Amino acid sequence: MKNVSSIPELRLARRSLPGAVGFVPTMGALHAGHLSLVQAARAECASVVVSIFVNPTQFGPQEDLSRYPRDLPRDLAMLEKAGVDLVWSPGEETMYPPGFQTWVEVEALTRHLEGELRPGHFRGVTTVVAKLFNAVLPDKAYFGQKDAQQAAVIQRMTRDLDFPIKIVVCPTLRETDGLAMSSRNAYLDPAQRKAATILFRALSAAWAAYEKGEHDAGQLRARVSEAVATEPLARLQYVSCADAGSLEELATVEGKALLSMAVYMGKTRLIDNFVLG
Amino acid sequence: MKNVSSIPELRLARRSLPGAVGFVPTMGALHAGHLSLVQAARAECASVVVSIFVNPTQFGPQEDLSRYPRDLPRDLAMLEKAGVDLVWSPGEETMYPPGFQTWVEVEALTRHLEGELRPGHFRGVTTVVAKLFNAVLPDKAYFGQKDAQQAAVIQRMTRDLDFPIKIVVCPTLRETDGLAMSSRNAYLDPAQRKAATILFRALSAAWAAYEKGEHDAGQLRARVSEAVATEPLARLQYVSCADAGSLEELATVEGKALLSMAVYMGKTRLIDNFVLG
Repeated sequence: MKNVSSIPELRLARRSLPGAVGFVPTMGALHAGHLSLVQAARAECASVVVSIFVNPTQFGPQEDLSRYPRDLPRDLAMLEKAGVDLVWSPGEETMYPPGFQTWVEVEALTRHLEGELRPGHFRGVTTVVAKLFNAVLPDKAYFGQKDAQQAAVIQRMTRDLDFPIKIVVCPTLRETDGLAMSSRNAYLDPAQRKAATILFRALSAAWAAYEKGEHDAGQLRARVSEAVATEPLARLQYVSCADAGSLEELATVEGKALLSMAVYMGKTRLIDNFVLG
Repeated sequence: MKNVSSIPELRLARRSLPGAVGFVPTMGALHAGHLSLVQAARAECASVVVSIFVNPTQFGPQEDLSRYPRDLPRDLAMLEKAGVDLVWSPGEETMYPPGFQTWVEVEALTRHLEGELRPGHFRGVTTVVAKLFNAVLPDKAYFGQKDAQQAAVIQRMTRDLDFPIKIVVCPTLRETDGLAMSSRNAYLDPAQRKAATILFRALSAAWAAYEKGEHDAGQLRARVSEAVATEPLARLQYVSCADAGSLEELATVEGKALLSMAVYMGKTRLIDNFVLG
């Protein structure tokens, strides 16, 4: 496994990779969810590239950029073991040199949910992903369903800007108690960690109601809110039941719907989602 | 020479082009200026691709989109004769299908000059050029110095988004009387066409003053305004003497400066520029 940091080194190493290239962009602090993306890429592509970059432009001024977990040696060891061919871990000065002033923005899809609550977040995401795509030149790129809106926004950007890249969205990996894997789970103290299963339990409760025939979106949202209210350590930020394509809120679930939520456990913000239908 | 319109056809034809690919994006209505870009591409690259697309998103609501000259058969004959390998002439529905919502925007450089007077113009330009780059995947792309700010904005976008493409800016081609070649010259009636040399004459007057030691930017702008005032058919929209890198207006010309202007001849808007220093 090769590990490079500059773009010229990356381009050189990229050129020597044989066959189709699968790409997994990450912010490091890797967990089994990331490794499942690597496995999917290995199964479908001759070569696998992973980037590690904690992208400052997708964090708001009050968010957790400075305390975001970083452990490059540990990440590299995990990726080597997972059979990755090339790791690119650029510095901030490589990605955002002085004078940087170009942004990629997806409009309608970013007005809801995470985009509404984290202004500028998706502009940072789409800009850095466009840069990563142009630097790595992959054939396929892998994203997790845990960040459902991000996956939808990246798919939209890729199609709209004609990137010659297939976006693959892989299922959310969960701990044995149902908590969706996330680098931010490392922030939780033991009590919060135990309470954090409320996201999965709340979504499961709404899903059970949906399976029993409850298709009223307001009722499904209420199932989530009611469940979260039973957990004193959790504070619900939003619950959404939206069209899976447009992410517009629904009155009634007819086609595919995204049931998604954000919860604060202390200062830590967690998100999760189920797809209905 | 191959001529394709859909993106799948383009990708297929692109894959069979040998060696380095030079790319000349155009809005058609070709003239010798475009052909000089093709010649530069042929001199430097094994294969040459030209796109023809009148991009609606770079025209303002009051601008000349509907009357912009279009003559595909004539353009194709010119490009065939010029030795182009592949022409891509997509329709609007190919470039902006329903649901399109992603934009590429360069910030500081687009606040001045054309960007200030044509709101949204450069957002349309950078978005379509990013799309063209991703569809054509060239090694080099060729732009004319006549659209000086456009060239600067595209260079900035290419660097900021890490496109693996070298941007080549070629000199402005002029008619024998000095008028910069432009597809919009076709709008001029004979009297306007004759009067349109005022742009070149005004820039030349300011250049002569600069060469004689006048480095005060206000004085250089005044030379241009005074010259344009002598031509009753011309109405000056702006004259700028700006830093060639940042496009910020200067007080004194010290390094490289862009002396640029826009003039209305009737309803037709013409631009031109000289680089000083």
